[in-house]
Amino acid sequence: MELNPTHDPSARSWLASANNPQADFPIQNLPFAVFRRRASQEAFRGGIAIGDQVIDLAALHQAGVLTGLAAQGLAACTGDSLNPFMAMRPAIWSALRRAVFDGLLADANGPEAATLRASLVPLAKVEYQVPARIGDYTDFYTSIHHARNVGRVIRPEDPLTPNFQWIPIAYHGRASSVVISDTPFHRPMGQAMPPGARAPVYGASQRMDYELEMGIYIGAGNTQGQAIPLTEAESHIFGMCLLNDWSARDHQFWEMAPLGPFLGKNFCTTVSPWIVTMEALVPFRVPFSHPADEPQPLPYLDTPANSAQGGVDVQLEVRLETAQHRARGVAPDRLSATSFRHQYWTIAQMVTQHTVGGCNLQTGDLLGTGTISGPTAEEAGAIVELSLGGSRSISLPGTGEQRTFLEDGDAVILRGWCEKPGAVRIGFGECKGELLPAVGD
Amino acid sequence: MELNPTHDPSARSWLASANNPQADFPIQNLPFAVFRRRASQEAFRGGIAIGDQVIDLAALHQAGVLTGLAAQGLAACTGDSLNPFMAMRPAIWSALRRAVFDGLLADANGPEAATLRASLVPLAKVEYQVPARIGDYTDFYTSIHHARNVGRVIRPEDPLTPNFQWIPIAYHGRASSVVISDTPFHRPMGQAMPPGARAPVYGASQRMDYELEMGIYIGAGNTQGQAIPLTEAESHIFGMCLLNDWSARDHQFWEMAPLGPFLGKNFCTTVSPWIVTMEALVPFRVPFSHPADEPQPLPYLDTPANSAQGGVDVQLEVRLETAQHRARGVAPDRLSATSFRHQYWTIAQMVTQHTVGGCNLQTGDLLGTGTISGPTAEEAGAIVELSLGGSRSISLPGTGEQRTFLEDGDAVILRGWCEKPGAVRIGFGECKGELLPAVGD
Repeated sequence: MELNPTHDPSARSWLASANNPQADFPIQNLPFAVFRRRASQEAFRGGIAIGDQVIDLAALHQAGVLTGLAAQGLAACTGDSLNPFMAMRPAIWSALRRAVFDGLLADANGPEAATLRASLVPLAKVEYQVPARIGDYTDFYTSIHHARNVGRVIRPEDPLTPNFQWIPIAYHGRASSVVISDTPFHRPMGQAMPPGARAPVYGASQRMDYELEMGIYIGAGNTQGQAIPLTEAESHIFGMCLLNDWSARDHQFWEMAPLGPFLGKNFCTTVSPWIVTMEALVPFRVPFSHPADEPQPLPYLDTPANSAQGGVDVQLEVRLETAQHRARGVAPDRLSATSFRHQYWTIAQMVTQHTVGGCNLQTGDLLGTGTISGPTAEEAGAIVELSLGGSRSISLPGTGEQRTFLEDGDAVILRGWCEKPGAVRIGFGECKGELLPAVGD
Repeated sequence: MELNPTHDPSARSWLASANNPQADFPIQNLPFAVFRRRASQEAFRGGIAIGDQVIDLAALHQAGVLTGLAAQGLAACTGDSLNPFMAMRPAIWSALRRAVFDGLLADANGPEAATLRASLVPLAKVEYQVPARIGDYTDFYTSIHHARNVGRVIRPEDPLTPNFQWIPIAYHGRASSVVISDTPFHRPMGQAMPPGARAPVYGASQRMDYELEMGIYIGAGNTQGQAIPLTEAESHIFGMCLLNDWSARDHQFWEMAPLGPFLGKNFCTTVSPWIVTMEALVPFRVPFSHPADEPQPLPYLDTPANSAQGGVDVQLEVRLETAQHRARGVAPDRLSATSFRHQYWTIAQMVTQHTVGGCNLQTGDLLGTGTISGPTAEEAGAIVELSLGGSRSISLPGTGEQRTFLEDGDAVILRGWCEKPGAVRIGFGECKGELLPAVGD
């Protein structure tokens, strides 16, 4: 396979901030978002991140210097959602990314470079909205470590349900309450059944949790009744982001038999602004297979082509910023770190399983991966796992505070990045949300 | 309370077909749909049913004879979804319905009547689409009889989960695969775990079922984080329809632990074209309370104002039309009949529960009531209940066939209507779908 020039680790940009080896957005990344200048009345439009800047794609389109497929793609990035662009074929996604890459290269000196320079807006001055009109949001449950950790809390004798190793389990989530990073939300009211009680209580959740996840945006959808085979699944994926599936564990555990989570999850789900394309992730793909001593996937979920590079090695971390951290100017404490490469099921398997019965995915649909917990206890992606169901306090070294669940004023910050020898580090930016006190408690 | 003239049982229309006492669409009903002439290239637009005709609301708007609130409402009914109209306040819904009612009255002779007459299209010549852009679809589980019937199949020792009498249980469904009546769909492929097997099998569902439900369309939504109190819940409901939540029971039972139904439900959900407004249903409201020997609702789900008329007495029936019925020209066989008045939770309680944690409903969102099964075995709203989990055959008198689950070519027809002494019967039309053979089996 020919090397894609956008993966060349020696490529540098004329924009100095893009060449910082710790930058999330070097010239090898070029993720997409929908943005405008903060506190302005400007229309939201598409943007591509580079270094500490955003390329304003509406301005770039207006300048009219791109041609061919790249120009077609660019014209679809000028509105307040990326759906028109996401609906296009991967060759167009690729052409636009390549044209922007070429114009940003250190030795670029044509009209594209000048126009790109004129289209830059500092990242520090922008705000974002959810980058797609999300028709449906589906949340998977694909970390075997998370499934075992949580299962031990509620079903100690049998933590893993028998279907886990056969099915990428999923449930439908709530699309309307997906919000962009930095949107605070209120602690939810609802019913919980206290241990040993005879009747449930109504009140603010006492067991507030986050869930470290990644999000997958669908590009082209499928016709209802027509499944997407595994070999084609990744061509339907536009890119990935960070996702926090906030959870009210007390409400969730009381309501979820027999039909699954509902109010325990649907009050808020936070996504990061930037969508990293599948093309940018190519250098960080890893081989994937189920352990030989575990059930092997049924044929429709198992192809050699896929298992050769089914995983994605995205480093992930969760940090907690309490009101005390902010008051004292202390950096947020790290709660855990892991990698997305540990998932039991791949993103292609998720797409194929979702459509195998004929369910139609649509452009802009969001799939959550489910909580990402790694193999060791320290790699858990939810506080209910770290605190063993609330039975153990977690110390925050920065402030000396303790936590079993989240408290009002706590902000959770997810970060993700890919790095390995011989490749330039690329990052996902951050996904942050702050828990406000309950309304009407 | 002043009598709403549209509820006057003595009202008659100049359109003779509207005065048939068995008609679904007398002048007292006036439900809304989105339609166009069948097999035409016309734009879909709003319509109101009267007798055997549809009032073309785009044509009526064009004529410009309505004024005030009614004209405001009418202008919002000309596009290919009713969302702009549903987003308006109930006074506008009411004003448009009243203006149309007045113009259809037997003694109406102004320009409104002439214009209405000129806007009629025969029901027999139209086709429909889903009348709203559905942001999210939620399915409830509010029939205690259904919950007990199904629970006995999978949890004989404890059929009702402990939360049922405290929570209007719900889960998120799939909005993208909601289709309009008369849209056939394919038997889904997927995984099932046969009894006693050590590994699941992949194939077409062997336990295909329907679910008799009603659908509720949301009018005005709520802001994320702001719950809708019970006393205001019904003002957020635009109207109701019939809904068939097709289910692949073998796939569903294998996948649903621990996160609920997913592929077992998301391949297709069918809705009827006509939305009967809450105003038209006023004469058929019934008092509602939980039995004294069962837990009483927590205060946020229980107000005197609501329990006075929380129920809706909609008569419902399920008919099965097999390929044999069609080949022989035999009428479909009735499988069961019941009433919506038996539900354990009200539609207002569903809306309030959905939002109590801060989840935002949006205009056009669809809530399913869950399978509607009455108190006796004959009133069951799903074939898995009628056939006792597939252990008993159901005879179809019309053709002499037998069924335990649905077979390819079977069409299920749901019908609903309201009738009582002193009121004119109103109907919901029908909700029909045919099961086609699996693709790729």
